Amino acid sequence: MNQVIETLQNHRSIRKFDDRALTDEQIHTIIKSAQAASTSSFVQAYSIIGVKDKQKKAQLAELAGGQTYVENNGHFFIFCADLYRHQLIAEKYGQDNKAVLESTEKFMVAVIDATLAAQNAVIAAESMGLGAVYIGGLRNQLNEVCDLIKTPPLVLPLFGVAVGYPAHQPDQKQRLPLEQVYHEDVYQQDKDMYLEQLEKYDQDISQYYDKRTNGQRKDTWTGQMASMLSKPTRMYMKEFVAKKGFNKQ
Amino acid sequence: MNQVIETLQNHRSIRKFDDRALTDEQIHTIIKSAQAASTSSFVQAYSIIGVKDKQKKAQLAELAGGQTYVENNGHFFIFCADLYRHQLIAEKYGQDNKAVLESTEKFMVAVIDATLAAQNAVIAAESMGLGAVYIGGLRNQLNEVCDLIKTPPLVLPLFGVAVGYPAHQPDQKQRLPLEQVYHEDVYQQDKDMYLEQLEKYDQDISQYYDKRTNGQRKDTWTGQMASMLSKPTRMYMKEFVAKKGFNKQ
Repeated sequence: MNQVIETLQNHRSIRKFDDRALTDEQIHTIIKSAQAASTSSFVQAYSIIGVKDKQKKAQLAELAGGQTYVENNGHFFIFCADLYRHQLIAEKYGQDNKAVLESTEKFMVAVIDATLAAQNAVIAAESMGLGAVYIGGLRNQLNEVCDLIKTPPLVLPLFGVAVGYPAHQPDQKQRLPLEQVYHEDVYQQDKDMYLEQLEKYDQDISQYYDKRTNGQRKDTWTGQMASMLSKPTRMYMKEFVAKKGFNKQ
Repeated sequence: MNQVIETLQNHRSIRKFDDRALTDEQIHTIIKSAQAASTSSFVQAYSIIGVKDKQKKAQLAELAGGQTYVENNGHFFIFCADLYRHQLIAEKYGQDNKAVLESTEKFMVAVIDATLAAQNAVIAAESMGLGAVYIGGLRNQLNEVCDLIKTPPLVLPLFGVAVGYPAHQPDQKQRLPLEQVYHEDVYQQDKDMYLEQLEKYDQDISQYYDKRTNGQRKDTWTGQMASMLSKPTRMYMKEFVAKKGFNKQ
C-alpha cells in the first residue's frame, strides 16, 4: 500500500482541533491541490472562501446548527458552485446565455467541479498531518451564509470544510459491503440479496456503536437511514437554488 | 512536497491507454479508496458500475460522443448518484419518504457523495501509476446509458472514469489564478479586477495552445467559455433527472 492509498483509506472526520491556525503557505498548498483536480471541459465552476474572521466563524458555527468545530479549527473553507465568472464572460462577449447558465446540467457541472476540488483539498490537508471534516450543516440556512460571505448571483455555497491539527483520533466507521456499492457490467437489482447484505451490515454497525459507547447506543445503519429519511430537512433548497440562478431549466 | 501532494498536483487527464486490463485487486483497491471518502451523514448515496464487457464499452464510447478512450482503457467506471437502497430501506420500515427522496437537497447530497468517492478513486489510481479521465460525455444520452447498465429508479449515472496505463503524457493546463478562485472572508465582487485577471489568464492559456500546436490553435479561456456557453447542451437534464426520481421538490 503506497502513501497515497494509506492517506485515503485512513480517512476519518476530525471534529476537534488544536488552537493553531494554518499558515498562508499551508492554505495555498491546499488551494493549489484543489485546483489541480479535473474540471468539466476546463470550466472551473467553483470558488472557495476561506474564513479567518473570528466573528464570522462564530456566526457560521451558529448557522450550521451549533457545531463548535466550525468555529474552532485551523482554517474554515467554504466550497461554492460558481458560474458568476461565466456570466461576466457572457456579458463581455455580448452573449445571452441565461438558459445555459440556468440549466440543471450546468448546476450539476458546478456541484461536481466544486466537490472534486474539495476532496483534493481534504486529501492534501490530511497528507500534511492535518484533519478535516465536511460541514453539510452549512446548507441549513444558506440565505444567511450567502449574506455573511457576500456571494453574488450564480454562486451557491455547498458545504464547509473545517481543517486543523487533530485533537482526537476517532474510530473509522465501516462502509457498506463492497458488493453493494460496486457492480460489474449491470446494476444488481436483486432486492432479497440487497436486504440480506444490509442485515449483515446492520449487525456490524450495531457492534461498532455498542463497543464505542459501552453499550449505550443501540443503532443500525438502516435504522439511522430510516430515521434520517423520516425527517424532511432543507426542503427550501429547490427554491433557494433557483433564486441563486441555478437548476431552473 | 509530500508524495500525496505531488500526486494531486501532478494530475493530468489521460486519454490514451495501453491495452492492459486492471486486475481485480487493483479495482478493489480503487473501490475501497473511493468508499473511504467522507459521506454526508453516513448516507453513502452512490454506486459504482465497473464495465468489463467489451460490447458495452463500445456502446458507451458511442453514446459519449465517440470517445475512443471510453472503449480502450484498463477499466471503465460509472459513478452514479444512488438513493435506491434508501428507498428499499423506507419500504422495509414501512415509511413513505417520497418527498425527502425527491428533494433537491437529497439530490445534491447524492451528487456530492458520488463525486467525493470518484475523486478518491482517481487519486488512488494515479498513485498506482495509472492514469484517468472523467467522462462527462456520458450525460449526452443518459436514457440509453441507464438501459445499458440496467439502473433502477433513484439511480442516476453522473460521469464515467476511464482508468488504465498511460500511453501518453499530456501537458498540464494552467488553472485560474488562485486569487480568482480563493477569497478570504468575503467573496470579492470587483468586476474590473476580475476581468483584468481574466485578461492576463487568457494570455497564458493562449500561449499554452500556441506552443502545444505550433501556432495552429488560437484560443483563450474566456473564448472557450463563451463558445461553450453559446451552445445549449444536455438541456433534457432537468426532465430526465426528475424522471429518475431526483430533484423534484
